[in-house]
Amino acid sequence: MATSEKQSSPKPPPSPSPLRNSKFFQSNMRILISGGAGFIGSHLVDKLMENEKNEVIVADNYFTGSKDNLKKWIGHPRFELIRHDVTEPLLIEVDQIYHLACPASPIFYKYNPVKTIKTNVIGTLNMLGLAKRVGARILLTSTSEVYGDPLIHPQPESYWGNVNPIGSFIHFIITCVSFSLSYKVDAMIIGVRSCYDEGKRVAETLMFDYHRQHGIEIRIARIFNTYGPRMNIDDGRVVSNFIAQALRGEALTVQKPGTQTRSFCYVSDMVDGLMRLMEGDETGPINIGNPGEFTMVELAETVKELINPSIETKMVENTPDDPRQRKPDITKAKEVLGWEPKVKLREGLPLMEEDFRLRLGVPKK
Amino acid sequence: MATSEKQSSPKPPPSPSPLRNSKFFQSNMRILISGGAGFIGSHLVDKLMENEKNEVIVADNYFTGSKDNLKKWIGHPRFELIRHDVTEPLLIEVDQIYHLACPASPIFYKYNPVKTIKTNVIGTLNMLGLAKRVGARILLTSTSEVYGDPLIHPQPESYWGNVNPIGSFIHFIITCVSFSLSYKVDAMIIGVRSCYDEGKRVAETLMFDYHRQHGIEIRIARIFNTYGPRMNIDDGRVVSNFIAQALRGEALTVQKPGTQTRSFCYVSDMVDGLMRLMEGDETGPINIGNPGEFTMVELAETVKELINPSIETKMVENTPDDPRQRKPDITKAKEVLGWEPKVKLREGLPLMEEDFRLRLGVPKK
Repeated sequence: MATSEKQSSPKPPPSPSPLRNSKFFQSNMRILISGGAGFIGSHLVDKLMENEKNEVIVADNYFTGSKDNLKKWIGHPRFELIRHDVTEPLLIEVDQIYHLACPASPIFYKYNPVKTIKTNVIGTLNMLGLAKRVGARILLTSTSEVYGDPLIHPQPESYWGNVNPIGSFIHFIITCVSFSLSYKVDAMIIGVRSCYDEGKRVAETLMFDYHRQHGIEIRIARIFNTYGPRMNIDDGRVVSNFIAQALRGEALTVQKPGTQTRSFCYVSDMVDGLMRLMEGDETGPINIGNPGEFTMVELAETVKELINPSIETKMVENTPDDPRQRKPDITKAKEVLGWEPKVKLREGLPLMEEDFRLRLGVPKK
Repeated sequence: MATSEKQSSPKPPPSPSPLRNSKFFQSNMRILISGGAGFIGSHLVDKLMENEKNEVIVADNYFTGSKDNLKKWIGHPRFELIRHDVTEPLLIEVDQIYHLACPASPIFYKYNPVKTIKTNVIGTLNMLGLAKRVGARILLTSTSEVYGDPLIHPQPESYWGNVNPIGSFIHFIITCVSFSLSYKVDAMIIGVRSCYDEGKRVAETLMFDYHRQHGIEIRIARIFNTYGPRMNIDDGRVVSNFIAQALRGEALTVQKPGTQTRSFCYVSDMVDGLMRLMEGDETGPINIGNPGEFTMVELAETVKELINPSIETKMVENTPDDPRQRKPDITKAKEVLGWEPKVKLREGLPLMEEDFRLRLGVPKK
């Protein structure tokens, strides 16, 4: 079920106290991060490892995560990497759980929608079961997708959302046809978003039910679009798409109509928000995201300007269930966590560019 | 896991054909009904057993269902009763699955919200796994609760709903306090509806994902309030509450404000709708319910008039998440299934009264 990553331990970590409890041992923490080999997870690991009283355990099935993201920690005495799928139970001793495990990019979470639901539901049940067993505090990274295609803007946490529970089969067929025409599909199954949206909604419900039923200390972050180094290249997300295309000298493919908006939070801001939420007293749900709003056309223009002014932009078909607008109302995060994003898009994009250049092997001019 | 009900079989059922398939053997069906010992399930069993080419298998954990509801079939050669919880897999050979298993009354589904979600999600996964394995067609009884506290009225199937994914902890406390004051709570845990609403929404998502991913033949009914003989007495549902109170000579307790509306479908109409959906070509979701709309005060007056004109009505506190209005738009059911309800409330209530008199031991005056 769970095989431990081989590691050389010059100095073994301190043995666990039977009284280990976040209230009494806040300076000496065992922290589990499910999905810790992923984009956000690995940055969270970096930050948590800075505190030398923390021991960090990552559980990941490497469906979208990668050991490469954690290579600097493999072998470190305060770090452990476990190959584990959260749809199976995990029996370990920890004080805090950051439960991030779930493919978060549409092309990955739509690849096997049933597995996506299992990851969200059975995965969250398993993590909550662990939290209950060992008395750990657990933070779920939920998503702005619980708001679906929102009818109010920006979205506060109190908004109940506008989600299509079943997707649409006719739209699905149209999507497949139009995708096949405009892209090479490579036997990829294109599904609908509902597996992710409804899966995360029920994960939130489970969190609150465990909280009410068993007194588990829960934290729920609803995270909005995040970008930064270590994003999967070509994972279909708009920022990574544009940067990869700009570096390769390809036209930027803007999904129609191009006026749909997104808000982009730099990953260091996101990690800071998640850690403040975990350490604070508020269960959430709390929106963590950058309220700066950009249309897809604006984003393309910014990427062009910063990275490669000579390339073109090209309008392409969109998926039918792509939300038109998404922007967090972060009033609550400001008030409760004293948090707001610091990194502007024009500062964050060059940091990401640098990482993508290395990975794509495109030298700086 | 699954223990078979002891039965004396005067004549064994025909042995299954390896080519058994709903397309070729429509006149010789093995039909599984999960939750078949419940209120609607047992009426469905009665109707399906009328066709002597049907073999009927019921799987039930008896959390809210009862063997009493099926006593006339126990021992029948075409009938089998299995004690089984759908959160565990079930390996049997069937052609059709009516997947009804889930507590449907708030006091039962709120009793253990985590179990309610497991029943809806893991239960539906197991039933879909069975359908996939044996090539069976599967019908899910979803619910009008997927519409939440609807913002449009009446609700067509295309409405995405207005559901609070997390419930509210403050409301929850207020509810507990007000319930404790107005009722005897008897160590009953009062939770929030989200476990049921979100659980059913994700069950629908799973149905469509199996349909899209694996080609499973699915049918989804969104069923609205149903009433009739064999409803649990004192299960907190308004019709059964009122009839039991009227027969016992107690005041009818109307939850405030009393102007909230419901639509009540007699159980024989419901069963007819479900069977038409199963036999038809449309996946759904299709609303099955009676569009006749009554306020709680009107319902109380009708019950008084028909059963016990001498009793009073009393206004009591309501739960905070009680929907204000619920009425099905059945245009699609009429068009696609040629179905509409036939039994009027004033005809159905006396049939239910008769059954409740027998079970409560209150003779007709």
